[in-house]
Amino acid sequence: MRITVCCTDTKVGPWIEALQSLLPEARIEQWRPGAPQADHAVVWSPPQQFLDEQPRLKGIFNIGAGVDALLKLRLPPDPVVVRLDDAGMSVQMAEFVCHAVIRHFREFDAYAREGGTGNWGLRRPRLRSEFPVGVLGLGVLGQRVAQAVAGFEFPVLGWSRGGKEVPGVRCYAGEAELSAFLAATRVLVCLLPLTPETGNILNRESLSRLQSGGYLINVARGGHLVDEDLLALLDSGHLAGAALDVFRTEPLPADHPFWRHPKIVVTPHVSARTLRDESAAQIARKIRAMQAGQPIAGVVDRQRGY
Amino acid sequence: MRITVCCTDTKVGPWIEALQSLLPEARIEQWRPGAPQADHAVVWSPPQQFLDEQPRLKGIFNIGAGVDALLKLRLPPDPVVVRLDDAGMSVQMAEFVCHAVIRHFREFDAYAREGGTGNWGLRRPRLRSEFPVGVLGLGVLGQRVAQAVAGFEFPVLGWSRGGKEVPGVRCYAGEAELSAFLAATRVLVCLLPLTPETGNILNRESLSRLQSGGYLINVARGGHLVDEDLLALLDSGHLAGAALDVFRTEPLPADHPFWRHPKIVVTPHVSARTLRDESAAQIARKIRAMQAGQPIAGVVDRQRGY
Repeated sequence: MRITVCCTDTKVGPWIEALQSLLPEARIEQWRPGAPQADHAVVWSPPQQFLDEQPRLKGIFNIGAGVDALLKLRLPPDPVVVRLDDAGMSVQMAEFVCHAVIRHFREFDAYAREGGTGNWGLRRPRLRSEFPVGVLGLGVLGQRVAQAVAGFEFPVLGWSRGGKEVPGVRCYAGEAELSAFLAATRVLVCLLPLTPETGNILNRESLSRLQSGGYLINVARGGHLVDEDLLALLDSGHLAGAALDVFRTEPLPADHPFWRHPKIVVTPHVSARTLRDESAAQIARKIRAMQAGQPIAGVVDRQRGY
Repeated sequence: MRITVCCTDTKVGPWIEALQSLLPEARIEQWRPGAPQADHAVVWSPPQQFLDEQPRLKGIFNIGAGVDALLKLRLPPDPVVVRLDDAGMSVQMAEFVCHAVIRHFREFDAYAREGGTGNWGLRRPRLRSEFPVGVLGLGVLGQRVAQAVAGFEFPVLGWSRGGKEVPGVRCYAGEAELSAFLAATRVLVCLLPLTPETGNILNRESLSRLQSGGYLINVARGGHLVDEDLLALLDSGHLAGAALDVFRTEPLPADHPFWRHPKIVVTPHVSARTLRDESAAQIARKIRAMQAGQPIAGVVDRQRGY
């Protein structure tokens, strides 16, 4: 069995080492132009040339949860495209989003400003019943996030395209219920896959539907958000702030207005990092399962886009 | 039935209104020197004179979880002293402590510093297995906090005087196991009651036992911490930082070194605010139960101090 590894923006050596130790029988190599045809590929943002030169792959394993960058390319028709399936990411997402929700709800930034001047300024406690949190996207990550937030007794709502049931979460489904979901939400968390249908979904119209004093947490993809629309709604005062971890262009250009906007918290796409050991173990297990003809989780529906 | 309300640093009017609507049959008044003897008292930091003039109370209801300020006074021998029993405080504590743990673990302050300069600086992910969180004190608040932190998959340890069992938490008990608990802890959360035994428990000796790079979260009482010892261990580098919400003197004096120390985050005793509606409802329920001769929760053992 031959496995080729082709990752942009990621050190390939440690991945090959980790996979090799788990699949000692396989021949695992970094892809280079002209490399021989492999059985499986482990990829992150590969170039088009890679796919063109590897038409007979059985599986393409993406080392991230979102496959939008991969599906933008012309893919050979046969290989199964597989995304990471949690692999230590859902707990990070839950952590990141709960931190952002609590930071906003409990006004820790305001306390930090006061504290900087040595001022013991108590603020009136806010009611969590007035901060319903809506999670857009109820996949593995969205479900974990929704339940973690519910653990802090916020009202939690969830929206998905096809309809999901999540204990403790009021679930909405499909285009028809999106407006009602938004109108019942004050803190909006975006955890959707980026597909042609979800691009620009966070725009002036949708964000205007959030409850007054709304707050946006985008931990999905920069392509979900229309940057200028967010800025306009922050400036009009309809939205109270935003925590943004993903951007249309990454790294976010140093002169982008998000960096220094007083109501925006920027982080450099760190909400859920790919953890090499856990991810390599998951990919190795899945490769073995595929070789044995067993079903695997995380197979991407190319049509649907995730 | 006559109920007297005597609170320092708290507006009494809204408490009387809330209690009166729940106990319409009672005569509820703000205490003033010379007021008639009442059946029950609702108090926060009352003066000694109040207790001296009300020797025949049946119940003294403290509108907070910690009764250290009350037990410092000379109390009449008979009344049952009752503290608040959760009343919306445990979820706030879980929220506050999880936020502080995640903020430290995920290095959000470092990202904020980088972000301030428009710098997309990725940091190496840290392993949660290297951040065991130890909770000192496993009462209602400590148990809730320990379980909330465990929900984010940190290793969680707990210590209590008498020994407790909390699912998912490695529990230590008594003086004899305190050293082992501290040595296995990197992030220490103090949620102890303040008693003669626990005063100054966070000192140079105990904090030195924490794992290197230790972090302190004090949400109990300022009297637990020896301020200079914390500063010395931060300066030596053994401790990486601290989140402090409670202080020996409150408000924390504007010239106290904690305010501007780069490794210390100060908040003005907001980790768990007393929520008037929930607390008044709990106190009213307990007064009715006591009047009916039924047992109630949250009765303070004066000898033990909590």
